[in-house]
Amino acid sequence: MKIEAYKKLESLFNRISLISESISVLHWDAATKMPKRGAHARSGQIAELKKISHDLLVNKETEALLNEALSNTDDLSLWQKANIREMHAQWKKEKIIPKEIVVTLSHACSKCETVWREAKCNNDFSLVKPYLQEVLNLMIEIGQLKAEALNVPLYGALLNDYEPGFDCVHIDKLFTMYANFLPEFLGEVLEHQKMSPKIITPSGPFLIDAQRELGTKIMRAIGFDFSQGRLDESSHPFCGGIPEDVRVTTRYSENDFTKSLMGIIHETGHALYEMGLPENWRRQPVGQALGMSIHESQSLLFEMQVCRSYRFVKWATPMISRAFKGSDNAWDPDNLYRLYTNVCPSLIRVDADEVTYPAHVILRYNIEYALVTDKMTLNDLPAAWDEWMSNLLGLKPSNHENGCMQDIHWFDGAWGYFPSYSMGAITAAQFFNTAIQSDPNILPSISQGNFDPLYLWL
Amino acid sequence: MKIEAYKKLESLFNRISLISESISVLHWDAATKMPKRGAHARSGQIAELKKISHDLLVNKETEALLNEALSNTDDLSLWQKANIREMHAQWKKEKIIPKEIVVTLSHACSKCETVWREAKCNNDFSLVKPYLQEVLNLMIEIGQLKAEALNVPLYGALLNDYEPGFDCVHIDKLFTMYANFLPEFLGEVLEHQKMSPKIITPSGPFLIDAQRELGTKIMRAIGFDFSQGRLDESSHPFCGGIPEDVRVTTRYSENDFTKSLMGIIHETGHALYEMGLPENWRRQPVGQALGMSIHESQSLLFEMQVCRSYRFVKWATPMISRAFKGSDNAWDPDNLYRLYTNVCPSLIRVDADEVTYPAHVILRYNIEYALVTDKMTLNDLPAAWDEWMSNLLGLKPSNHENGCMQDIHWFDGAWGYFPSYSMGAITAAQFFNTAIQSDPNILPSISQGNFDPLYLWL
Repeated sequence: MKIEAYKKLESLFNRISLISESISVLHWDAATKMPKRGAHARSGQIAELKKISHDLLVNKETEALLNEALSNTDDLSLWQKANIREMHAQWKKEKIIPKEIVVTLSHACSKCETVWREAKCNNDFSLVKPYLQEVLNLMIEIGQLKAEALNVPLYGALLNDYEPGFDCVHIDKLFTMYANFLPEFLGEVLEHQKMSPKIITPSGPFLIDAQRELGTKIMRAIGFDFSQGRLDESSHPFCGGIPEDVRVTTRYSENDFTKSLMGIIHETGHALYEMGLPENWRRQPVGQALGMSIHESQSLLFEMQVCRSYRFVKWATPMISRAFKGSDNAWDPDNLYRLYTNVCPSLIRVDADEVTYPAHVILRYNIEYALVTDKMTLNDLPAAWDEWMSNLLGLKPSNHENGCMQDIHWFDGAWGYFPSYSMGAITAAQFFNTAIQSDPNILPSISQGNFDPLYLWL
Repeated sequence: MKIEAYKKLESLFNRISLISESISVLHWDAATKMPKRGAHARSGQIAELKKISHDLLVNKETEALLNEALSNTDDLSLWQKANIREMHAQWKKEKIIPKEIVVTLSHACSKCETVWREAKCNNDFSLVKPYLQEVLNLMIEIGQLKAEALNVPLYGALLNDYEPGFDCVHIDKLFTMYANFLPEFLGEVLEHQKMSPKIITPSGPFLIDAQRELGTKIMRAIGFDFSQGRLDESSHPFCGGIPEDVRVTTRYSENDFTKSLMGIIHETGHALYEMGLPENWRRQPVGQALGMSIHESQSLLFEMQVCRSYRFVKWATPMISRAFKGSDNAWDPDNLYRLYTNVCPSLIRVDADEVTYPAHVILRYNIEYALVTDKMTLNDLPAAWDEWMSNLLGLKPSNHENGCMQDIHWFDGAWGYFPSYSMGAITAAQFFNTAIQSDPNILPSISQGNFDPLYLWL
């Protein structure tokens, strides 16, 4: 019975999803709440759950069920057909990796991420290097296995984990175009900016509690429901959890509220996408995110398009200035708008402006490509980083914290992820442009803090 | 090869322990951080992990390994012998319960606990009653299965989950003795107290932040290491987590700091016991707590013996008064000591004094005994509670929150747990008395906030 096989698979994927939800809580806790000495045990817990999940998916019984269900899908609905296709894809990808590697990688990433936190604070790349080397070796091993099985190039195989179907041909073309375009365009933008009034930087310190309260207010305003989510702190901002319980994190600096606020808005964009996933297909492959480019398109739609628009900034200004009891000219909406849309080459990706952001991604893409294809070793990473930074943006990191150790991704095993940010940024701009053309009500509503027409379109 | 079978079992129990550690994080998160709408999914995650754990333990392969390892234990060390005995005991207990009941119970407890939180705030027993009924029905079913398999009475079978080897004969004897002893003794104590100076209650409000800071300081002072643990808030205080990452919770009231502080000390006692479990036997049955009476003996040793001693209170007084900027006579160590050792029948178990505490346990013991043995229905629970309260302590709850809904245990599936508190209290008194007689240095050290001699003895 094909339909019975399909139903059994649905129940299996439901179980697998419950395990990955548990892993997600363990990850969130490790990043936000866990005391230092819990790290080793946490690594064991996560690796054990990943092993169990792998065992549930990769075995003869699941294979037989997939074959049976796929042999005739006539009785399945359109959603069910898409679901079995996605199940099959997940199974094909997972079975390439031997269980031992799943477990070793999980441990290696947990360990490396833990050491990274410490090494970053101490500006000590050599401390984390051996752990990063282990993660990198495993990524290469996994990349080779996937490349062979899926008949794609090694880097493309890693990329596919985040953006199914995408390859380096597209990316190279796009990034070359951008790299050629940037210098002149950046010059023009900077020139143009000179004609605007000088930006007045609001003077701090900005109390963390006030930043948190403001962030919470803005999250609520753009539609985040705190009965199904939280806001916490972590050393690298992320959005985790599940649609009914989304865990957004940010990091605060007393010297600058603008970054934590935009960070919160970015992660809230991710959260809103998760919260909007089809409820009827929860815990099924077809009900999950469409890939990381789309995910990032939703975070960047809010961060770069909606919330840096003049209409939004003007609407939010009273809230922002009240939060920090600001009353001088710095708190004028026009000034805040200039502040939030100011283009200025800088060292930190997550704080970068819309124009220079892709440069940060290109840098990482080229370096990770060279590392996984053995064209560069980790010994050369810090120097290569600085060189790219200098070539692309004319800047030199003052330390590893604002240089090659700023992002969690490589240390956490997310190799091949970065291009999703730029794909997402492009998609976000396309979405927003199409949205405001389709519904002329969207922009005026944003002026009033009403995002319903935008959601409706999305 | 017996030793190989034993080694395989060690690795299996290591895996099972990693799963139960994950469940413990999910529980902690649910009680302290999780937004409301995450409850349903969390229930699914925990049930799934319990199912997996059950499957790992109860199967033919594990049974064969146990038989082989037990057939000849000559080559095993003393610890290994004890470990295989405990493994066998865990397996015997777990295999009695069909997997379906494990899953159903897990869901039922999660649901009931969630509804209890809300029902308690709304003083609405009828809201939670159907869910509690489901939990109770399952406890009876499980109790019957265990009673039959282990050849013990039903309630004794439940009791055994918390206190292996204990039975109602001991408890009945002890509790009858106490119930006869209480009225006259309580009268004497109250009479005696009249001769002491009148207690001056420190006047609040006591800021939650200040209470938290004080609690943290006292935890540190008595040996809690925050690099391997946390302090948070929950509606019912508990101590969860694992030895390297202990999660202590408490609850605060702005009107009274004494309760949150003693609550913190109680849970810290649990935490210190966990932190002191043998490191070489982590994740093995023999390395786990010896039962809940011993566990409670450690929490109550600190709560009732050490930290209510005059020496401790005198040492802690400057810290306490500084925390709340108290300076009048209420903050005199003699007054605080009288406050902390004051005997006064009251409605809430966790806040009860040493003399009346057992009455709270007796009440619960009698009611849960009657409920699981079908001598009472849940319809009669609130009235029975009030009647016992009136008989034992001459008090009447003003609502369910300080009546039959005050404790999480029944709603969370912990039936047969309460007697452990009184066993623990007795053991704590015996431990402390023996300790201070064995090492005359223990008491003077407490006066200086030095608990090392006590730890050494423990």
